[in-house]
Amino acid sequence: MEYRRFDRELILRLDPGDELCGAVTAVCRIEGISLASVCGIGACDRAEIGLYDVSSRKFTGRTFSEPLEIACVAGNVTEMDGQVYLHLHITLADSRMRSWSGHLKSCRISATAEIILRIFSGRVGRVYDDATGLNILDFSGTSPGESSFS
Amino acid sequence: MEYRRFDRELILRLDPGDELCGAVTAVCRIEGISLASVCGIGACDRAEIGLYDVSSRKFTGRTFSEPLEIACVAGNVTEMDGQVYLHLHITLADSRMRSWSGHLKSCRISATAEIILRIFSGRVGRVYDDATGLNILDFSGTSPGESSFS
Amino acid sequence: MEYRRFDRELILRLDPGDELCGAVTAVCRIEGISLASVCGIGACDRAEIGLYDVSSRKFTGRTFSEPLEIACVAGNVTEMDGQVYLHLHITLADSRMRSWSGHLKSCRISATAEIILRIFSGRVGRVYDDATGLNILDFSGTSPGESSFS
Repeated sequence: MEYRRFDRELILRLDPGDELCGAVTAVCRIEGISLASVCGIGACDRAEIGLYDVSSRKFTGRTFSEPLEIACVAGNVTEMDGQVYLHLHITLADSRMRSWSGHLKSCRISATAEIILRIFSGRVGRVYDDATGLNILDFSGTSPGESSFS
Repeated sequence: MEYRRFDRELILRLDPGDELCGAVTAVCRIEGISLASVCGIGACDRAEIGLYDVSSRKFTGRTFSEPLEIACVAGNVTEMDGQVYLHLHITLADSRMRSWSGHLKSCRISATAEIILRIFSGRVGRVYDDATGLNILDFSGTSPGESSFS
Repeated sequence: MEYRRFDRELILRLDPGDELCGAVTAVCRIEGISLASVCGIGACDRAEIGLYDVSSRKFTGRTFSEPLEIACVAGNVTEMDGQVYLHLHITLADSRMRSWSGHLKSCRISATAEIILRIFSGRVGRVYDDATGLNILDFSGTSPGESSFS
């Protein structure tokens, strides 16, 4: 992988064999990024994606092992327990152009991926939420926020 | 729901039962946001989406009532007749990871949703367009614009 | 088409008959944009999309000729050999709300499209990569970058 940061934007190129989630997390650690939006495109040959069912609290996963376009990978970088926390969803295309989507667990780049991070000047945490069984956004320690509402 | 604004970015968390379009519109009213891009991910258990056919001027809708991941919700906030005008398209994933997409009419959050608004310093309106039957972007009252072309 | 630029953001409206890739490229040339992220929604009635298979080095294409929503078009603007280089992936929805995705070759707008460019203050090039057969991001001539890693 290789990247360049321009002020509050960072452009990342992933190369064959790179795992997307691990690479984005590594870049955030190196650059000290604690809050950012993520959006990207690319191609992969292996992807684990899933869906979380709140009522059953079960995560249904599916692994694809074939040439796939990454039509869109989107989400955010926040912090939990002082660590980078990456939350991404992805839309993939198979060779018939059919789309498959879900929460992204891992994804191995086949050709290339081009990921753009927009870095925000602030902090947002995560807290485990009993009601849903998920680590949801936690604004309690947020700084500096201009305004908030809950 | 709960959100925090950081300069020109706003991060919004939606909670179980929240309706996405209504919540984003409400935040824009509270914050006085007249122009923004919107991008987000999450999960819902009910969504009304559709497709507009220009030639027949008919909107075909479909309602999904099942656990769905929000792979990507994208669009913008503008103004029409002095009111917040939200235009979003969405890509959903069902439990088999199949994707369903379209114009978003409404969407009820099941677990959580994480929506990022990027706020622009300007105004863009909407005007009803006879040729298509849609409310299209209208730059005539735009200010302050550095450059334009039509 | 018509657009307005606000500082580092540009909002573009495409009209019936406009070809998306050609229009975005034209706007970048007019505005002197060499580096940007692209995200948009809309509707089209013709789209050529595809998937690139690295192992066979073959591009599989598919053309859709029907009313389609553009659920999400995402990607970036860079430069190659001094020219604007546009790289976009797209997710489309047919009248049954099924999604089709891939690398975007061309797309004819039916009703409207609303595309947002975020312009970065820097340059990123492209170089042909023998290993994949693709024009990948090249940061060697990048300026001005605050930090980089490879």
